[in-house]
Amino acid sequence: MKGLFITLEGGDGAGKSTQIANITKFFEERGFVVVHTREPGGTPIGEKLRDILLDRENSEMTAVTEMLIYAASRAQHVGEKIIPALERGEIVICDRFVDSSIAYQAGGRELGGMVAEVNRYATGGLTPDITFWMDIDPEAGRARASKAGELDRLEVEKLDFHYRVYEGYRKISESDPDRVKRIDATRSVEEISEEILGYIDKLLAKQNA
Amino acid sequence: MKGLFITLEGGDGAGKSTQIANITKFFEERGFVVVHTREPGGTPIGEKLRDILLDRENSEMTAVTEMLIYAASRAQHVGEKIIPALERGEIVICDRFVDSSIAYQAGGRELGGMVAEVNRYATGGLTPDITFWMDIDPEAGRARASKAGELDRLEVEKLDFHYRVYEGYRKISESDPDRVKRIDATRSVEEISEEILGYIDKLLAKQNA
Repeated sequence: MKGLFITLEGGDGAGKSTQIANITKFFEERGFVVVHTREPGGTPIGEKLRDILLDRENSEMTAVTEMLIYAASRAQHVGEKIIPALERGEIVICDRFVDSSIAYQAGGRELGGMVAEVNRYATGGLTPDITFWMDIDPEAGRARASKAGELDRLEVEKLDFHYRVYEGYRKISESDPDRVKRIDATRSVEEISEEILGYIDKLLAKQNA
Repeated sequence: MKGLFITLEGGDGAGKSTQIANITKFFEERGFVVVHTREPGGTPIGEKLRDILLDRENSEMTAVTEMLIYAASRAQHVGEKIIPALERGEIVICDRFVDSSIAYQAGGRELGGMVAEVNRYATGGLTPDITFWMDIDPEAGRARASKAGELDRLEVEKLDFHYRVYEGYRKISESDPDRVKRIDATRSVEEISEEILGYIDKLLAKQNA
């Protein structure tokens, strides 16, 4: 595929949206077509699934159900939106992807290896070219997120859940350092942006080499 | 588990609902508590997923997405409703279960082995005690179903899809004859009911032996 697939990961309140806006600007200034999108959601069917996932009314949802709905939303996203855009040579920037399920459902919900397996089916094995993990202490991230508005069904989980999610991200970044870049998200927006765009410059240079 | 888990399978228009009513009556007359339920759906979360699955507006849905939403609905159904009922010693009669996904998504949609794998995760391996496959020629079944009302997103599929579904059911019934009983659904309601209740009598006798 000719395009580039970039994902941002991390707990809520880590500043993903701001950086997605910066990366989008970077590529658009250079004449690229950028698709920015998010999970769960990103397609009409995916957004309906997102509503079910994040609705605090659905407190009866089992961990396996949750994992499968995320995977369903992702399968639709990959098939209907991400792959067609990459095939047209566009830049796809996605807020959360498979790593979120590994961190939240395998880590936070302790579902283990089935999460990676189901997601391989859901995505047909599609992997981002580069992933930025916005690393911030779960407690600090949560304080930032709750300031921004009402917390959703996953955000209201207890703090030990969020520490397992954090631990999941840490393991992913350690086991796949070529793809997953750990970004210290406690710094200023400008410092973070500079580091991220530095990685992207290198990636583009490598692609054109 | 102390209860009994009975499922009915087959294309639309095969007469599943009528037989479910008969089986329910059989058990209730003998003092059992019966839970009859259906897939997709069966729980509040599952019914929301059912609406997405069957809505003809969702024509963009990929085969993998569809399979994962069915599995999500099933995971919720098993965890929230079926297993608790079986643990209370009740009789659970379900219109469609895993065999439907094997027939429709592995067979009809040609998704292969991933369907069984994902459904093992979704159900934790729960298997019905007995399954009745209401065997009717796909064309005849469809004619009956379309008389009964508007067709849903899967029912409107082309006839070759429904022949692959049929072939899927045939293979399941051949590979697991102890559990899956092929019922000739072209006969009268009374004849069918007699055969089904005969199997159930035998199953109860075996359980009490």
